[in-house]
Order: sequence, then C-alpha cells, then structure tokens
Amino acid sequence: MEIKVIGIGAGDPDYLTVQAVKAIAEVDVFFVLDKGEVKQELVELREEILRRHATGAAYEVVVGRDPERDRTSEAYVESVDDWRRRRADVCAGMIAESLKPDQTGAFLVWGDPSLYDSTLAILDDILARGELSFEVDVIPGISSVSALAARHRVGLNQVGKPIQVTTGRRLAKEWPDDVDDVVVMLDAQTAFSAHADQDADIYWGAYLGTPDELLVAGRLSEVAGEIERIRAEARDRKGWIMDTYLLRRNHRPKA
Amino acid sequence: MEIKVIGIGAGDPDYLTVQAVKAIAEVDVFFVLDKGEVKQELVELREEILRRHATGAAYEVVVGRDPERDRTSEAYVESVDDWRRRRADVCAGMIAESLKPDQTGAFLVWGDPSLYDSTLAILDDILARGELSFEVDVIPGISSVSALAARHRVGLNQVGKPIQVTTGRRLAKEWPDDVDDVVVMLDAQTAFSAHADQDADIYWGAYLGTPDELLVAGRLSEVAGEIERIRAEARDRKGWIMDTYLLRRNHRPKA
Ligand SMILES: C[S@@+](CC[C@H](N)C(=O)[O-])C[C@H]1O[C@@H](n2cnc3c(N)ncnc32)[C@H](O)[C@@H]1O
Ligand SMILES: C[S@@+](CC[C@H](N)C(=O)[O-])C[C@H]1O[C@@H](n2cnc3c(N)ncnc32)[C@H](O)[C@@H]1O
Repeated sequence: MEIKVIGIGAGDPDYLTVQAVKAIAEVDVFFVLDKGEVKQELVELREEILRRHATGAAYEVVVGRDPERDRTSEAYVESVDDWRRRRADVCAGMIAESLKPDQTGAFLVWGDPSLYDSTLAILDDILARGELSFEVDVIPGISSVSALAARHRVGLNQVGKPIQVTTGRRLAKEWPDDVDDVVVMLDAQTAFSAHADQDADIYWGAYLGTPDELLVAGRLSEVAGEIERIRAEARDRKGWIMDTYLLRRNHRPKA
Repeated sequence: MEIKVIGIGAGDPDYLTVQAVKAIAEVDVFFVLDKGEVKQELVELREEILRRHATGAAYEVVVGRDPERDRTSEAYVESVDDWRRRRADVCAGMIAESLKPDQTGAFLVWGDPSLYDSTLAILDDILARGELSFEVDVIPGISSVSALAARHRVGLNQVGKPIQVTTGRRLAKEWPDDVDDVVVMLDAQTAFSAHADQDADIYWGAYLGTPDELLVAGRLSEVAGEIERIRAEARDRKGWIMDTYLLRRNHRPKA
C-alpha cells in the first residue's frame, strides 16, 4: 500500500510539476476531506486537475467529512492538535475501507505539502497507531510563497540575509528585530497594519495564480490602507480570501 | 522584448512545472553564464531540459563568461555586490547583442528564482541603467527547500510556528532563540556542528532530486559526525557538493 502526498501548487493548474502529473496518473484512489467549502473554486480546481491528468486506469475519489475545528478556543495549539487527531480518524477510516493492499492512494495538497499543511502529520499519526501500514511518497509543489515572489518578480532574501516565514497571528504580536524579510501566511486580520510605522516595503498577493489574482506592492506606510480596502472588498465579493505577503524592512540612511 | 526567468527546480528534471515547460517552448534565446563549472552534471541537466522541452521553433543558446568572484574578501556583501555588477555587464552585453526586439529571451534558474539567486537583481540592475528595456516574466520553481522536505517526508513548520531560512555563514554565528525550525543553505562548512550540544533534530540532504542524492536524519548530537564524514567523502568523490538541511530544536521535558 502506498499513499502519495502530491503538492499541486498554490493556484495555477500549470504550477503542477511533471513529477506530479506522472504521480497522479498512477493513483487508484484519491482521498479528499470535504471542508463543506465556500471555496467552491478550489474544489473545482482539484477536479480540473483530475480530469486533465488522472489519465491512467480508472480511479476513484473518496470523500470524507472534515471534522469541525473549534475556532473559538483560546488554546490554539491544543485545538489544532485535537482537530488533527479527529482528522486522522477520518482519514484512517477512508484508507482502511477503500484502499486495497496493492493499490496507490493519494492526497492532493494545495501548494507545497511542507508549508502549513497537516497532511503529513496526519499520516504520521495514523502510522504511529500501528493499525495501518503504508509507504508515504511526497511530491513537492509550488508554494504560495514562491508564487508570491514570482508574481512580484522579487527575491525573498537580501544578499546573504535570512528570511522568516510566519503566521499573521505571530506577526500581529511582533516583527522580530533580527530578520528584515518576513513572509506572512494564514493572516486573518491584516497584521501588517500593526507595523505601518516602520520603514518597510510590502509585496502583497491574493488568489495568486488564479484569474482573480490581486497584487499590490509599495511602501508599507503608503499602501497598508489600500490593501485593507482591496482585501475587504474582495473577501465580501467572493466570500473568502487567501493572501500572503512579504514584508521587507528598509535601512535607509536617516535624512 | 521579454526576458523569462524560469525556475527549473533543484535537481530532478521532473521538478519542472507545466508552466515552465510551456515557457521554455516559447523562448528564442537562452542565456547562460558559464561558471567554468566543475559541476558538469548541472550543465548537462540544463542541456537535457532544453533537448526535451525546447520544442518550439529554433532556439539559440548564448553563453557569457561569468566573472570571477573575490572569495577571499572579508567584505562579503561588497564582494557579492561588485560581482553582481560585473555579471550585469556581461548579461546586458549578451541581451543587447543577441535578442531582437520581438524576441523572447530566458535564463534558466536552478530551484526557485526567489531563493538565494541573483538573476532577478541582475535584471533589475540592467533595467535601472536605462540602456535596455524589456519585460520580465518569472516562473516559480521547486526550491531545494521544498525538495528537502519532500524527500524527508517532513513539514518545515510546527503548528502555528515560524520557519527561518538562512545561510551556513549566519548559522555558524548563531541559532536564534526565537525560532526552532531553521533551514540552512549555502553552507560551506557544516555549521550545524557548532550546535550539536542542543537538543535538536537534523534533516540533511545533498544532491537532492538527482541520482546521487544523499539523505540523513536523526538527533543532531548523534548524526552530526556521520553527516560530516558522508559529506566530505561525497565532495571528494564528485569534486563539489550542494547540500541543505532543516534543524528542528526540541523542547523535551527535562528528565
Ligand atoms: C493552510 S496554508 C497552506 C499553504 C500551502 N501549503 C502553500 O504551500 O502555499 C494556507 C495559506 O497559504 C497562503 N496561500 C495559499 N494559496 C494562496 C494563494 N493562491 N494566494 C495567496 N495566498 C495563498 C495563504 O496565506 C493561506 O492563508
Ligand atoms: C545559490 S543557492 C540557490 C538556491 C536555489 N535557487 C533553490 O531554490 O534551491 C545554492 C544552495 O541551494 C542549496 N541547493 C540547491 N540545490 C540543491 C540540491 N539539489 N540538493 C541540496 N541542496 C541544494 C544548497 O544549499 C546550495 O548551497
């Protein structure tokens, strides 16, 4: 039994790699956690990818019900851990019921499986329980971070310097002094606005790689308000938003 | 005039995306900086990619001489800046001489163009001089960071926590307290060994995605010596090495 965890890239179906295309053609059963999503377009993208590339033999799609996450909890990590455990239950059930010993199953993961995605941890959980046994094969994908940089035609790092990738929740608390270049994901609250007094640039992107893509770049103090407006409007119009940005602190000589 | 900066992925030719394959087919002139490389295999990989995918009309390959970098200099940033300026001179020359106004040129970039690569900065330099004018189109690629995580089947971040991507030079000086997960690139000196007293895990990979790929994972204190040996031996055998690793600090309760 083998489970492939296939990064499909963060938006454009052409972000798929040749390796992912070949892997998809070998899969017997695709596992999907149904998030009851408003994000209908993301479901459609996944379907389009299967239509185009799942060209091997017949394949099956098994949909599990994604357990609700307790978003009110203050104990963020606990709530995520508990949620992951319940998702592992659902996934283990799907695999046990639908995958035969000589078959290959797969999860299609948005972007790159290594960045803020729980699929690998869920599979580790399942394997650790010892009831199921399978090989795991991971296919890297174009992350929203790479997509953001490409669309803005900008490098993430400055010469010889570090980059930090972090969450909106953390940035809202602090932008560490020792790292000038920060990429922010999972930001529900425009945490960049808390730092608009700093001499910094922002490269912001929403719905990257899709027909709805939005890009804004400029001095943070000058464009923060504009990004907030565009973001709120887009979220209202579509019902959801997915955005990422690079903050770059400047060290301009004082005038 | 258009210049495409195409990420080709960090090792496996199948890391190429569908978008990159389509872009390559449209290119009239590929620009290459000849590094007088010992890394003959990297040159061959690029040639294989062109053979397979540059299937559009006829195309041309223009090779420029990469200027020597002053590696003895203590002033690391200055030396890199100066080197970049001289590379920009070489690239501007190639573009001016070989690309016609209605043509598309391209640079194939190892991995993802946004990570520790100077191509975008060189093109910005050339445009800033004002002598040449062209559009820039960037195609993201699978970075060695994504490849490393995939090959070790591991996520880069822990739930809700940040990741830092940095250089061996910086890690040798310090592993910041406030970030437990650090990806290290451009490490000429096994900087991880300086931190072998910490309670941490390492996921190390060399020649990722290639037939020579080497992977070692384990507790840093236990495998640091083994990685040093394997690394030295591989570098001697092949004449060069390219390695990346993830360090993950543990917070185990004290016994
Ligand atoms: C759960 S994480 C998954 C990240 C994904 N594994 C990746 O590699 O991009 C979701 C976050 O990724 C970012 N994201 C994913 N796709 C995006 C896109 N197309 N445009 C902008 N941001 C995106 C957003 O910050 C979002 O909150
Ligand atoms: C100049 S940087 C270029 C990085 C590239 N743009 C990327 O996205 O991976 C070169 C460094 O990338 C890492 N690297 C690139 N390819 C690699 C591979 N196939 N295996 C291991 N490390 C690699 C090494 O740390 C190397 O020192």
